[in-house]
Amino acid sequence: MRSDRMPRRTFRATPTITAFECSPDRGQGLARDMRVRWALEEAGQPYNVRLLSFKAMKEPAHLALHPFGQIPTYEEGDLTLFETGSIVFHIAERHEALLPGDDDARARAITWMFAALNTVEPPILELVTARILERDKPWSSERLPLVQDRVRDRLDQLSAHLGDAEWLDGAFSVGDLMMASVLLRLRPSGILDEFPGLSSYVARAEARPAYRRAFAAQLAVFSAASSS
Amino acid sequence: MRSDRMPRRTFRATPTITAFECSPDRGQGLARDMRVRWALEEAGQPYNVRLLSFKAMKEPAHLALHPFGQIPTYEEGDLTLFETGSIVFHIAERHEALLPGDDDARARAITWMFAALNTVEPPILELVTARILERDKPWSSERLPLVQDRVRDRLDQLSAHLGDAEWLDGAFSVGDLMMASVLLRLRPSGILDEFPGLSSYVARAEARPAYRRAFAAQLAVFSAASSS
Repeated sequence: MRSDRMPRRTFRATPTITAFECSPDRGQGLARDMRVRWALEEAGQPYNVRLLSFKAMKEPAHLALHPFGQIPTYEEGDLTLFETGSIVFHIAERHEALLPGDDDARARAITWMFAALNTVEPPILELVTARILERDKPWSSERLPLVQDRVRDRLDQLSAHLGDAEWLDGAFSVGDLMMASVLLRLRPSGILDEFPGLSSYVARAEARPAYRRAFAAQLAVFSAASSS
Repeated sequence: MRSDRMPRRTFRATPTITAFECSPDRGQGLARDMRVRWALEEAGQPYNVRLLSFKAMKEPAHLALHPFGQIPTYEEGDLTLFETGSIVFHIAERHEALLPGDDDARARAITWMFAALNTVEPPILELVTARILERDKPWSSERLPLVQDRVRDRLDQLSAHLGDAEWLDGAFSVGDLMMASVLLRLRPSGILDEFPGLSSYVARAEARPAYRRAFAAQLAVFSAASSS
């Protein structure tokens, strides 16, 4: 441990994020605005939401905020950010419970955030693509097990590291927020259930009050859209 | 612009990174230690390299440093990190030319780093998998164009954003280092050549003295291994 503490950054204005007007996951909390909502709830930071249709996401006004035409975006005063990892990190830098002040613990929390996004999520995204976009292709049933096994390889390693620990590196951090969010995407496939340790880890994350508030908020958007 | 400058972090010891004893890319600079070497060269920070065989990467001593059994790792005094994005960010925080001191410019550089790793690289990794791991599968020739088109969609958007600019957000930053590194993985596929603006962008990155020093260093490792 090294007490190389920097002054903590602060929010300069109430942030506004963007989210799907009608989420394709039907309010299951798998859209990426959920990760940002959760981080803001952990930080105790109120926020505004601007809802976007699929059409509006690809129009110039939104592309000016997000070159890849996706959600979420993040506006805080005159600062505009896109890319979930970047937004969540920006929020985490402003709250001790997401990103520890101790320099080494901070670096390790950041490491787990990147590990979630770059080592664990890519095979999971491949699986989502295989299960949805390529579902009707003639090769789908033959290829799916290969993709599933690549996901299992990663989960084996992650599970071995986590062992019986509550969180990835001591206290809950932005690394756990991101890892649990990534693992949640696996739930529809049934693969998460094959790893009891990781299932419990995700359940601990979902039980956090901040997660529950964020989940309820995104579900309320979906419920309102589908009843209107 | 907001001059919310924090004191800059410093290196506490000469870092040691790990790299392949004999890189599978035969010294083309596509292995992920290249990204870390390049960042260290930009920062003017000397470093040591410990070479690992494929067998050693999966053994307990290395798994204690890297739960997913990959390279690179990073050791600086008693701090150990894995995950290329995290290591490169750790280095970038210690050098103004990689991560600007201005708070907003810093947040945007971080955004591009995440965009490189999480929006642009995933379809490129799928393409690498399709071209190498699944090359001999019966569906390979039918599926490859779909994967290539997903890559092209991203490059269209990136290219539209970059336009005639030299770098993604004003001065060169860690965002460009990561984006150019990711785009370089496309070169063997020929797709990068379809985007002249992005090809020039990558060429500008490769012309940087720090890139050239890093490239030469990783090539020297491969050359020594293959002549021994």
